[in-house]
Amino acid sequence: MARFLKKRTKALGQSPGDLIFIGNQKMESVQLRLIDYDTGSLTDQELLDIKDGSHFKETKTVTWININGLHDLDVIKDVGRIFELHPLVLEDILNTGQRPKIEEFDTYLFIALKMIRFDRETETVINEQLGMVLGKNYLLTFQEQRGDVFEPVRKRIKRDKSRLRGSGTDYLAYALIDTVVDNYIYIIELIGERIEDLEETLLVGHDTEVMEKINAFKREINYLRKSIRPAREAILQLSRLDGDLIHENTLPFIKDLQDLMAQATEAIDTYRDLLSDQLNIYNSVMANKMNDIMKVLTIFAAIFIPLTFVAGIYGTNFEYLPELHYKYSYFIFWAIMIIIAGGLILFFKRKRWL
Amino acid sequence: MARFLKKRTKALGQSPGDLIFIGNQKMESVQLRLIDYDTGSLTDQELLDIKDGSHFKETKTVTWININGLHDLDVIKDVGRIFELHPLVLEDILNTGQRPKIEEFDTYLFIALKMIRFDRETETVINEQLGMVLGKNYLLTFQEQRGDVFEPVRKRIKRDKSRLRGSGTDYLAYALIDTVVDNYIYIIELIGERIEDLEETLLVGHDTEVMEKINAFKREINYLRKSIRPAREAILQLSRLDGDLIHENTLPFIKDLQDLMAQATEAIDTYRDLLSDQLNIYNSVMANKMNDIMKVLTIFAAIFIPLTFVAGIYGTNFEYLPELHYKYSYFIFWAIMIIIAGGLILFFKRKRWL
Amino acid sequence: MARFLKKRTKALGQSPGDLIFIGNQKMESVQLRLIDYDTGSLTDQELLDIKDGSHFKETKTVTWININGLHDLDVIKDVGRIFELHPLVLEDILNTGQRPKIEEFDTYLFIALKMIRFDRETETVINEQLGMVLGKNYLLTFQEQRGDVFEPVRKRIKRDKSRLRGSGTDYLAYALIDTVVDNYIYIIELIGERIEDLEETLLVGHDTEVMEKINAFKREINYLRKSIRPAREAILQLSRLDGDLIHENTLPFIKDLQDLMAQATEAIDTYRDLLSDQLNIYNSVMANKMNDIMKVLTIFAAIFIPLTFVAGIYGTNFEYLPELHYKYSYFIFWAIMIIIAGGLILFFKRKRWL
Amino acid sequence: MARFLKKRTKALGQSPGDLIFIGNQKMESVQLRLIDYDTGSLTDQELLDIKDGSHFKETKTVTWININGLHDLDVIKDVGRIFELHPLVLEDILNTGQRPKIEEFDTYLFIALKMIRFDRETETVINEQLGMVLGKNYLLTFQEQRGDVFEPVRKRIKRDKSRLRGSGTDYLAYALIDTVVDNYIYIIELIGERIEDLEETLLVGHDTEVMEKINAFKREINYLRKSIRPAREAILQLSRLDGDLIHENTLPFIKDLQDLMAQATEAIDTYRDLLSDQLNIYNSVMANKMNDIMKVLTIFAAIFIPLTFVAGIYGTNFEYLPELHYKYSYFIFWAIMIIIAGGLILFFKRKRWL
Amino acid sequence: MARFLKKRTKALGQSPGDLIFIGNQKMESVQLRLIDYDTGSLTDQELLDIKDGSHFKETKTVTWININGLHDLDVIKDVGRIFELHPLVLEDILNTGQRPKIEEFDTYLFIALKMIRFDRETETVINEQLGMVLGKNYLLTFQEQRGDVFEPVRKRIKRDKSRLRGSGTDYLAYALIDTVVDNYIYIIELIGERIEDLEETLLVGHDTEVMEKINAFKREINYLRKSIRPAREAILQLSRLDGDLIHENTLPFIKDLQDLMAQATEAIDTYRDLLSDQLNIYNSVMANKMNDIMKVLTIFAAIFIPLTFVAGIYGTNFEYLPELHYKYSYFIFWAIMIIIAGGLILFFKRKRWL
Repeated sequence: MARFLKKRTKALGQSPGDLIFIGNQKMESVQLRLIDYDTGSLTDQELLDIKDGSHFKETKTVTWININGLHDLDVIKDVGRIFELHPLVLEDILNTGQRPKIEEFDTYLFIALKMIRFDRETETVINEQLGMVLGKNYLLTFQEQRGDVFEPVRKRIKRDKSRLRGSGTDYLAYALIDTVVDNYIYIIELIGERIEDLEETLLVGHDTEVMEKINAFKREINYLRKSIRPAREAILQLSRLDGDLIHENTLPFIKDLQDLMAQATEAIDTYRDLLSDQLNIYNSVMANKMNDIMKVLTIFAAIFIPLTFVAGIYGTNFEYLPELHYKYSYFIFWAIMIIIAGGLILFFKRKRWL
Repeated sequence: MARFLKKRTKALGQSPGDLIFIGNQKMESVQLRLIDYDTGSLTDQELLDIKDGSHFKETKTVTWININGLHDLDVIKDVGRIFELHPLVLEDILNTGQRPKIEEFDTYLFIALKMIRFDRETETVINEQLGMVLGKNYLLTFQEQRGDVFEPVRKRIKRDKSRLRGSGTDYLAYALIDTVVDNYIYIIELIGERIEDLEETLLVGHDTEVMEKINAFKREINYLRKSIRPAREAILQLSRLDGDLIHENTLPFIKDLQDLMAQATEAIDTYRDLLSDQLNIYNSVMANKMNDIMKVLTIFAAIFIPLTFVAGIYGTNFEYLPELHYKYSYFIFWAIMIIIAGGLILFFKRKRWL
Repeated sequence: MARFLKKRTKALGQSPGDLIFIGNQKMESVQLRLIDYDTGSLTDQELLDIKDGSHFKETKTVTWININGLHDLDVIKDVGRIFELHPLVLEDILNTGQRPKIEEFDTYLFIALKMIRFDRETETVINEQLGMVLGKNYLLTFQEQRGDVFEPVRKRIKRDKSRLRGSGTDYLAYALIDTVVDNYIYIIELIGERIEDLEETLLVGHDTEVMEKINAFKREINYLRKSIRPAREAILQLSRLDGDLIHENTLPFIKDLQDLMAQATEAIDTYRDLLSDQLNIYNSVMANKMNDIMKVLTIFAAIFIPLTFVAGIYGTNFEYLPELHYKYSYFIFWAIMIIIAGGLILFFKRKRWL
Repeated sequence: MARFLKKRTKALGQSPGDLIFIGNQKMESVQLRLIDYDTGSLTDQELLDIKDGSHFKETKTVTWININGLHDLDVIKDVGRIFELHPLVLEDILNTGQRPKIEEFDTYLFIALKMIRFDRETETVINEQLGMVLGKNYLLTFQEQRGDVFEPVRKRIKRDKSRLRGSGTDYLAYALIDTVVDNYIYIIELIGERIEDLEETLLVGHDTEVMEKINAFKREINYLRKSIRPAREAILQLSRLDGDLIHENTLPFIKDLQDLMAQATEAIDTYRDLLSDQLNIYNSVMANKMNDIMKVLTIFAAIFIPLTFVAGIYGTNFEYLPELHYKYSYFIFWAIMIIIAGGLILFFKRKRWL
Repeated sequence: MARFLKKRTKALGQSPGDLIFIGNQKMESVQLRLIDYDTGSLTDQELLDIKDGSHFKETKTVTWININGLHDLDVIKDVGRIFELHPLVLEDILNTGQRPKIEEFDTYLFIALKMIRFDRETETVINEQLGMVLGKNYLLTFQEQRGDVFEPVRKRIKRDKSRLRGSGTDYLAYALIDTVVDNYIYIIELIGERIEDLEETLLVGHDTEVMEKINAFKREINYLRKSIRPAREAILQLSRLDGDLIHENTLPFIKDLQDLMAQATEAIDTYRDLLSDQLNIYNSVMANKMNDIMKVLTIFAAIFIPLTFVAGIYGTNFEYLPELHYKYSYFIFWAIMIIIAGGLILFFKRKRWL
């Protein structure tokens, strides 16, 4: 299975702008949730039809519509029609193999990011696409399935009297991206800790198991990197936009996001290097073990093979073999044996093999 | 055979601008197909002579002439004369080893790209040159042989009432490049899946076969990279042109192409890294196996060589060998054997070799 | 334990700008020390409450408040309120896993750096966060715990009649950063010397110990690099600021800091390369040793196994074994033995194994 | 011998601008050839003295003077005096270890390139310096020895009625550089083909021979790279010059040269990577062979050493060895042997060593 | 000993601008030499006190004061006072671990470079700091010890009627840097030649000696690189200065220096790559040797161990061992032996081990 590139085979020969959902359907029906607020008022409701939310588009209040589930093309098309989105934006929302990016249009911004989860059972990273459309008075978010990632933000909208309620859609978008990025750091931490713990078992070396783990973490780190590096670029771009969609007061917060992303990508690079070093160390440990094994073999063989030969000589049945008949032959034979063995042991001691 | 650099030996000592076809003739006769359309009208015909298409050059309709087969220099020269192309452009069209690029001229753009196929039998990537000349009212495409890659675009021209028919040559060029780029992604997917599948056989390790596959995929990925990386640059350049050949409405589509190319080159880099990691893992697995083999050898040798030596001693024919004559010698001998063997087994257990 | 990324788990789901201390509490109570001076006057006192220092904010004298200990959020909040700091600055001060950086605000600069110590017992590098807020007339420094790193600067403030006393807060900030940077170089030196000393034991090769050391130093160097490389960027940025917080006279000193940082990062890169080379050499030494071991084994085995076989032949009990009965058989047998052994020794000499 | 850096020892302590020839004298006497042409006229003559060509300097016709042989300093000094060249240009012409470059002066350009040959016998690349001075109406070329590289260009000057005869010195310079660059590509092809052919012998592995070849090609590729990479930069610079020495019509041709150089450097990088991969594969093949060898050894040793031991037991001469006297002992002995051997064979089959 | 970073421990806790000499005192007393010249006049004298040279500062003639020996802080302080140097410049002059750089001040330039020597006995590179202060009418040079590196320049000043005598301090500075850079090239050549010579002994492989040499040269090349790479940047900067300290006529000469530095750094990179390749080849040669050794062992063991076993069978003392009593048993036994041995030899021939 190709995890590093999402199957676009369905899209081959398709006209650009034609809508197809690239991904696996992860929930039964599409879920629409609208939150509308300003300093004074707050509405939070499930929408049955996106058209019910269309009149919020023009109001001055902050309107956030979250769409869970992307498989129902009609819903997406309705959203596109109501909010006048470019067909390529809709295509990008539906193509869950999209590379993280930011695209500027006349009246709105399109942001594609990855949300990341870590499946502790399989120890693999799973990513999901998050599409965002940021207009002057509305924010649309598209997720592949139901999740409670944005719950803390919703709570803050309800509770918090100050910043979120007093700010525009740009700050809301920032708050959502911030939870996504916080999660990146959290998951890098999670994997990083496991990687740093490997170090200790490395020199003990329980054979192939350590290597398999190094290999597995390398793959996961590369997988993370694939989502996070372009996200860093995208967030960098966010602070350099010309339009008035991002308010000046929000800029320091976006700068903060950039710092977090810099930290995240640096940590990923550090862990990549660490894993490479670990594989090198692992290989050296293996070579060392090999040397140990061979030393044992060589010592045994080098001592006993000559001795066996000497014994073999006196095991021959030659009629005229004078030594056999002397009385002390056997004892002299033992003496010779011991001298040979002792000499060899000395030789190996000098070579520091013993 | 040099696959990574196409033989230009024929061109040595040639005057620049002199036309020679560099490549293998892949079809018998040159095939010319003209499609001419605007919102209202549509013509689709095979041309016997390029001159029959010359009057379309001036009309305001979109004129697409596709030339299959490059070996007939007269045809190419005629095209050059009619569309007033620079001799170097003709040279580049004929040199199928051309590096993907975009070149700007006063009244037209020259685009050279690679079309890519994957031969499933030999598991190798095959590329063919696609030359494009994009003028205000005409688009010329040059392919090495007949192919049905552009068939979906032709169908869309006939069917689609909206975008293609309502747009200019630039959007047509985009649509063609888009099918080429979609194909890149498709083929990277195809190879990528095979590479990711290798991972599983890696730790089992059916000796040299895995390594040969890693090697083969590395070569194919490098071969792909050679075509795709300069294409990325070329497409990036496409959105930064000064002239009016690219209409503003087409720009978001070209931006989309850039995203696809970014995804393609990143995927290629990811797979290159993956293959390098796999070779490292393979080597570690080999070293591990070696250790296993040597452990078996050492255990057998270290246990039985000393025992054989002891047996050898009592196989000697010394006349005065007192132990031979005691009644329980043989049993004591066995006891000593078992003690030695047991001691060594314990020793190896402690070393965790058993 | 994850040393390369500081646990932010506590911060998950937190509203940005909410204050939490990320790190380990390293001292019991927060310690506040105020030094206020100009060319003529000097005050040096411990503050019980940060509010006691608030009136110094407006005076034209240089006011340096050093805060040791970050766990008491009330103190930090008070500082924030009095000096009107952006909530994100307070968050950064408290997050001791912060990446070194410089951030410009309207009336002050925020600088985050790492102070580095080398624990000689565990041979590991330990870093601590240093937060600095540089205003026109005040400098705030935040440390995780009590330390005497800045003691020399305090002494110079008291003693030195000329530069520090005659300059502004920017020069004081420079002086503090200079001690921090001097310490970087000192610690790189300390580790570098140990690394260069490894070279000599490398070719002798006391088995795994050298490799473990290479590994350990690699980790420490990487850990240093993580603190020092972003610090270099930050200091570079310091000389390119637009505002008037940095006086022109201080610029050559900051340029000097940049040189030191360039030296530090280059030294780190050099040592990283050196360690990689050392691991390569170590592996080659191991392979060489292996060859030596195998040569010994092969020579012993190749000489004595054939001889033992010959002896074995004449140890058989065949009734009709003519050689056994000739008088000189035994001596001929010895001669053959010696010839075989001699031949093999010659063979190995030619192969340069002996 | 240092092939990668040409001995400048002679130049040590020399005043800059002092002329010394750095290289080996490759021909007996200096050869001067003058070709002067415009659309209507053509002169081609050997000059005995450079002064005979001095009056051509001022004529509007294109004057090409080719100097073969650099060892006669007087000739070079005369050239310098007549064409008013900067002393450093003369120094560079004579220093055949010069790095490819372009240098702009008020009235002329100095271009230094390498001409490359491939000696099929020693399979090594040989380079020679080509110095060019491009003035408005004259072109001077300096070669180390007689060669027929430029013969095709001379023929085209004589024959070709159109471009070369109708263009200025810049186009002539382009035509000469083009033959040089065509030759680069040709030689990379030549070596590349040999490198790609290595691939097949790689998995068969005729021991050290393949490795020696990989090593040799790596050296040659590096040697090529040393000449070609700076040449790429120089040619890039050629199209960005401010002056009027390069006519606008010549620019597309220089752009074409840049494409060829891009292709050449990319091919070199590809082959470098290929060779590195090949060495990796070679090492893996070696490790695999080692495993095979060890398996054979281990199987033989593990089966026969225990058997020999059993035989050894019954070869002992103990007086009271009951088994020796039973009638079927010998056959039971054989049975035990076969069971042991069979068991071990099964064991090795399970381990997939057989 | 840390060769790659010069001990600054003495400087810890020091106030910036405080003067301390970092390095080893290499001569007894400081030596001051003044050369003052213009086209017409020339003075060359040893100064006892730097103050004796102070009046030359204002004259329009070129004044070059060379200071050998840096341990006497009073002399350095006097120089600083007379020529009004910034305290940081004095600090840099004294800190012999300074990174090569150029620093611009209002009325002078400070240049720090490394002079390099190669100790043929220990085969190590030794560097010494060269400090230069370039004013409009004076040039100060600071060396750690007496040396005759600049003697050729002094001779040229005395002899040469034209360029040096007719130019300003900038050309003198160029001439001195040129001798330093010529020396870089010379030493890279010296080491490079040794490295290229290693190639030949590589495939013969006199065990660890080659590896030790590769290792040693790698260290020296890295050491060189550390001095030369920043010097390249510094010299590049020299041609981009704004002030009028560098005369326009001197620029082509500085451009020439840049070419030499480019050549030097490229050669260093080439040799680094070469050494890495050599280590790879060395490891492959080692692996090959190992294979050879194991083949010999395996062939001997695999042939003679089974034979010994067969002999062992007929060495047993079973009473009822029928084969022992047949007349031709012994000869059949030999025949079996020869068949087994022959079969195995054939087997190994097929495996190409023989």
